[in-house]
Amino acid sequence: MKKIAVIGAGSWGTALALVLADNKHNVHLWGRREDQAEEINKRHTNSRYLPDIVLPESIKATVSLEDAVSDAEVIVLVTPTKALREVLHELKDHLQAPAVFVHASKGIEPGTYKRITEIIEEELPENVRLAVAVLSGPSHAEEVSLRQPTTVTVSCSDLSRAEQVQDLFINQNFRVYTNPDVIGVELGGALKNIIALGAGMSDGLGYGDNAKAALITRGLAEIARLGTAMGANPLTFAGLTGIGDLIVTCTSVHSRNWRAGNMLGKGMQLEEVLSKMGMVVEGVRTTQAAYELAQSVEVEMPITNVLYDVLFNGKEPKQAVDELMKRSRTHEVEDLSSLRS
Amino acid sequence: MKKIAVIGAGSWGTALALVLADNKHNVHLWGRREDQAEEINKRHTNSRYLPDIVLPESIKATVSLEDAVSDAEVIVLVTPTKALREVLHELKDHLQAPAVFVHASKGIEPGTYKRITEIIEEELPENVRLAVAVLSGPSHAEEVSLRQPTTVTVSCSDLSRAEQVQDLFINQNFRVYTNPDVIGVELGGALKNIIALGAGMSDGLGYGDNAKAALITRGLAEIARLGTAMGANPLTFAGLTGIGDLIVTCTSVHSRNWRAGNMLGKGMQLEEVLSKMGMVVEGVRTTQAAYELAQSVEVEMPITNVLYDVLFNGKEPKQAVDELMKRSRTHEVEDLSSLRS
Repeated sequence: MKKIAVIGAGSWGTALALVLADNKHNVHLWGRREDQAEEINKRHTNSRYLPDIVLPESIKATVSLEDAVSDAEVIVLVTPTKALREVLHELKDHLQAPAVFVHASKGIEPGTYKRITEIIEEELPENVRLAVAVLSGPSHAEEVSLRQPTTVTVSCSDLSRAEQVQDLFINQNFRVYTNPDVIGVELGGALKNIIALGAGMSDGLGYGDNAKAALITRGLAEIARLGTAMGANPLTFAGLTGIGDLIVTCTSVHSRNWRAGNMLGKGMQLEEVLSKMGMVVEGVRTTQAAYELAQSVEVEMPITNVLYDVLFNGKEPKQAVDELMKRSRTHEVEDLSSLRS
Repeated sequence: MKKIAVIGAGSWGTALALVLADNKHNVHLWGRREDQAEEINKRHTNSRYLPDIVLPESIKATVSLEDAVSDAEVIVLVTPTKALREVLHELKDHLQAPAVFVHASKGIEPGTYKRITEIIEEELPENVRLAVAVLSGPSHAEEVSLRQPTTVTVSCSDLSRAEQVQDLFINQNFRVYTNPDVIGVELGGALKNIIALGAGMSDGLGYGDNAKAALITRGLAEIARLGTAMGANPLTFAGLTGIGDLIVTCTSVHSRNWRAGNMLGKGMQLEEVLSKMGMVVEGVRTTQAAYELAQSVEVEMPITNVLYDVLFNGKEPKQAVDELMKRSRTHEVEDLSSLRS
């Protein structure tokens, strides 16, 4: 039994805390809201994020970062990308010994184009971190909290640390694989949110499964193209954190990026969508970051480009999807050849 | 304007006839049933297969293979794999000049393990066929008949013939790409039906999107493994006829293979499922063919193996899916490395 801090008490942070508690670890779940911590500690529910789920009583919620992390051996970071630097800055002074950091967030930082492990390594001095790993894969929090079968990947440049994290999380319902390609695992998780916005938009326009499958397929090709240019192993995009996560995010109404795209497809403006969602929509920020990044490394990303125009330049969603359908390229393998490593 | 024969008046044959008629070709649609031909010619509907669709009046239905193929420049074969040899045997005597053959069927012949272009080349003398091509991709007939955006791939060893077929079918809503990898295009289309049975079974058992995404991801890896061993380009499995078709078949209630799997997951026996469906379920025959083929070429196909046991050896669906979730392999990239060409 290890003391593990889970930083971020949204749906995914809470579901991961539940997995760790099921595995008999000593779990401290941190969030900013007093009323939420009280609800988790007294009623063992987190009704805003995981309605209808009764949490294991052993999960201790706290609003004190110090209490959460002070003697934790492992710290699981599940904050929105936007809040990450601030949280890391706050928590580093409370660490009593070096810890293993595992993040389960998905995004690229606008402006710096940094991946999340890079941000963590930048914000935390080397002497407080034993390793920085990422946990990613096709995993709706709602299903994980219902103990439905789920598979994820843990990636860390140090394989023995990846296996240590694998051991913490793995159980009968929650299967954990390892993959040494940190860059590919992180970029797959981040970039898939762009394609999910597009898939939601296609559905919102009233287009069917054929159009969505084409978008997902060509989306995978362009994600892999950018990822490979950034140093990822192209095979990772064919795995759980690539195509697996892409499928789950593009075909489920649980996905907030799909939902945001769907509202755009139905004619809503971006500001209206974001205010309706009331949650972070990582795909919007990621589209901007990927658009700029693709230009700087000269990688062709047609889906990302038209979504950027819809989000930030007032392009009509219907025109955007119709343009994608009518692209001039006609030989399929040309479009996929970047998947070859 | 060319005379084109479409052989098979089920939902997919009828939808392809509609695309060709929209493109102003002279389309002759062949089926065995008199009442169906009469319905198509008089009422311009094919209500059993495409309810609510009004067909272009220019589509001429016939029960005479001779009338359909006699002076056709292009013959589109859309019959169940099981009926193909018999139909080819019947039609070859009615050909007045060599034609281009395009098939849009998905399967592997049990026993011989032949792909459909191989069966066509075996049954038809070389002097009656100018080329044999395959048309495949993520394409529910229902959506194609509603003119919703759809993308497919045409593959032929002769690129100029592939481009000729592309020109026949392409229009604003129906986008056609070419790919020279006939083996990969045919095997992707056939083998995906196995994974669709598994996805339906997982849904039928009450498992969620996480489990299904894992099955699809690992399913793609094993399809690509067998395909590559059979001479396909592994990249084809990352394209429209691989992952694209796999997604559409595994995530839609339109798919008859998914529906058959779903009934199995809910506890029905195979015979009961097949009699309820009233349509051919290619995935059942393909599972058997792929199971035997994988053994003979020594390729690991864990999903195909457990489905074979469910279909033919009375294994419980729940035990089958649970076993898949608990496989001992833990490093993800090992499982994917066969995707590398």
